[in-house]
Amino acid sequence: MLSQVVELIEKKKAFAITTHVKPDGDGLGSSLGLCWLLKSLGKTADVIVRGEVPPAYHKLPGVDLIRDVEHLNGSYDAVFLIECSDLERPGIRGLNEAFTVNIDHHSTGDPFGTINWIDPTASAVGEMIYNLCKAIGGRITKEIADCVYMALVTDTGSFHYSNTTDRTLKVASELIKAGAKPAEISGAVYNNYPWSRIELMRRVLDTVKRDETGKIAYMRQTLAMRQESDAIDGDNNGFVNIPLAAREVEAVIYMREIGANSYRVSLRSKGDLNVAKIAERFGGGGHRNAAGLQIDGNWDDKEAELVSILQTEIKSRIQ
Amino acid sequence: MLSQVVELIEKKKAFAITTHVKPDGDGLGSSLGLCWLLKSLGKTADVIVRGEVPPAYHKLPGVDLIRDVEHLNGSYDAVFLIECSDLERPGIRGLNEAFTVNIDHHSTGDPFGTINWIDPTASAVGEMIYNLCKAIGGRITKEIADCVYMALVTDTGSFHYSNTTDRTLKVASELIKAGAKPAEISGAVYNNYPWSRIELMRRVLDTVKRDETGKIAYMRQTLAMRQESDAIDGDNNGFVNIPLAAREVEAVIYMREIGANSYRVSLRSKGDLNVAKIAERFGGGGHRNAAGLQIDGNWDDKEAELVSILQTEIKSRIQ
Repeated sequence: MLSQVVELIEKKKAFAITTHVKPDGDGLGSSLGLCWLLKSLGKTADVIVRGEVPPAYHKLPGVDLIRDVEHLNGSYDAVFLIECSDLERPGIRGLNEAFTVNIDHHSTGDPFGTINWIDPTASAVGEMIYNLCKAIGGRITKEIADCVYMALVTDTGSFHYSNTTDRTLKVASELIKAGAKPAEISGAVYNNYPWSRIELMRRVLDTVKRDETGKIAYMRQTLAMRQESDAIDGDNNGFVNIPLAAREVEAVIYMREIGANSYRVSLRSKGDLNVAKIAERFGGGGHRNAAGLQIDGNWDDKEAELVSILQTEIKSRIQ
Repeated sequence: MLSQVVELIEKKKAFAITTHVKPDGDGLGSSLGLCWLLKSLGKTADVIVRGEVPPAYHKLPGVDLIRDVEHLNGSYDAVFLIECSDLERPGIRGLNEAFTVNIDHHSTGDPFGTINWIDPTASAVGEMIYNLCKAIGGRITKEIADCVYMALVTDTGSFHYSNTTDRTLKVASELIKAGAKPAEISGAVYNNYPWSRIELMRRVLDTVKRDETGKIAYMRQTLAMRQESDAIDGDNNGFVNIPLAAREVEAVIYMREIGANSYRVSLRSKGDLNVAKIAERFGGGGHRNAAGLQIDGNWDDKEAELVSILQTEIKSRIQ
């Protein structure tokens, strides 16, 4: 609960903050935002994140102080875990012996922390860090504002997703007042791709087709395309949404070659068309409108099979 | 001024509202929002817009009541012109004899109205309509909220552009409280393209190249591509921004064939690289980071010429 977190911070001195591996904007922005808040209150705080920080977040204030260590070393009064479903997610050893504070806006994980503050009504943990700052009587500094705004922008897809509430935008408004620059922060996320992404995009998009109903779009990424494009991990993030933006399209199948006759598949859908259910049949999973699976076999056959399953699903939904 | 507008509305009864031809989200959203506000105050109001309403706006409440007439016929106490630089912009005859109210957030036009209310600090006219509603003591109904939210989202590029202020997001927050659904409104704009746009995108993107410095990207759209894609006007909106999103790229040249050896050219740039200046040399114009021009000649030659001019500009800027 929030009150427990406030009490802990008031009573204690030395903190560590971490988030899940492959950190996203909410994980990094909220961790750094909390770090700046703790420092402004006269506490010490280390942010520990495993692995590389994606370029979109290189300009966040404090990003240069992030530590990438395997073991929790240092004597901390408590460790904050931001957006982690369990103690393993940060990829740091020694957490099971620590006093842990689990801060999340997803209610799906176990309450594994010594303290658990879970708020599923928050659009992002960033929103919770803002609330914490207010609850503890802190000032929203420019640094906190920049970091928390990044958290909000990325977790709401630029205030597009349905998790965007009046509270989200009220908080975002306050962060701008405190100095956050929307154009700079959005630009760091959405105008900061490597050129290899454009090269890969044109190759992948060149394979896009629709089934005979026009409602299902499908496209492919071969290993050769990755190589020809000099692509890095993450370059194809969001490609699957390009054909989905067409109003005729109700579902997208995006198959990526990962080895001989082996593919990772992203499924996307609109409205009540449930692709998680389809992914589960193949041992995959996800949400209603965004799911993934892995599949082996002949590419054409497997593509045709998935198209056919989606066609059946769309037909049965209409009746 | 706002006070004059409030007084006019309080004293008079019958209003018309119009905006520029080829209406955008701010023009339509603000016109319809104002119409709902006037109706909620017991006034009569007609919205008159010339030409087709783009699909993104088909679900705005009141869109079915929009009238497309050549002449201002009907006896109106006043006509509101939303985001029009002059009396010609709406494409309606008879406006010069009317009592006109010029409402705009651009300060570039002449103050042509009988009353002029210009607020360059507003991110969109939508923000001004919200302020008007508050000033006149009106209630933000669900209809007003939907229309004005659309105005804000489109004119700020989903709260990305630098015109986004704390006030913009505060207003957006209030509109959500009044019933606007961010995901639905953003979806209507950003997930509502015809399939032909995807077909055109993959053809255009397949031509993308960079110059030897890697800083200038250029691509083409032929008339044949339009035909093969069954493309309609507007399908290529935003394409020029795709290569611009790469961090290495400082400028983009997008040439579209409009006839034999004749091309419409869009230039985009980042930071202080001024492409309006370049466009002006060819009789075109625009803003610092977004400009356009028309050019005739051999395609390869003209493309090489523009690349070379941009290279010189980038070099001189560095020194």
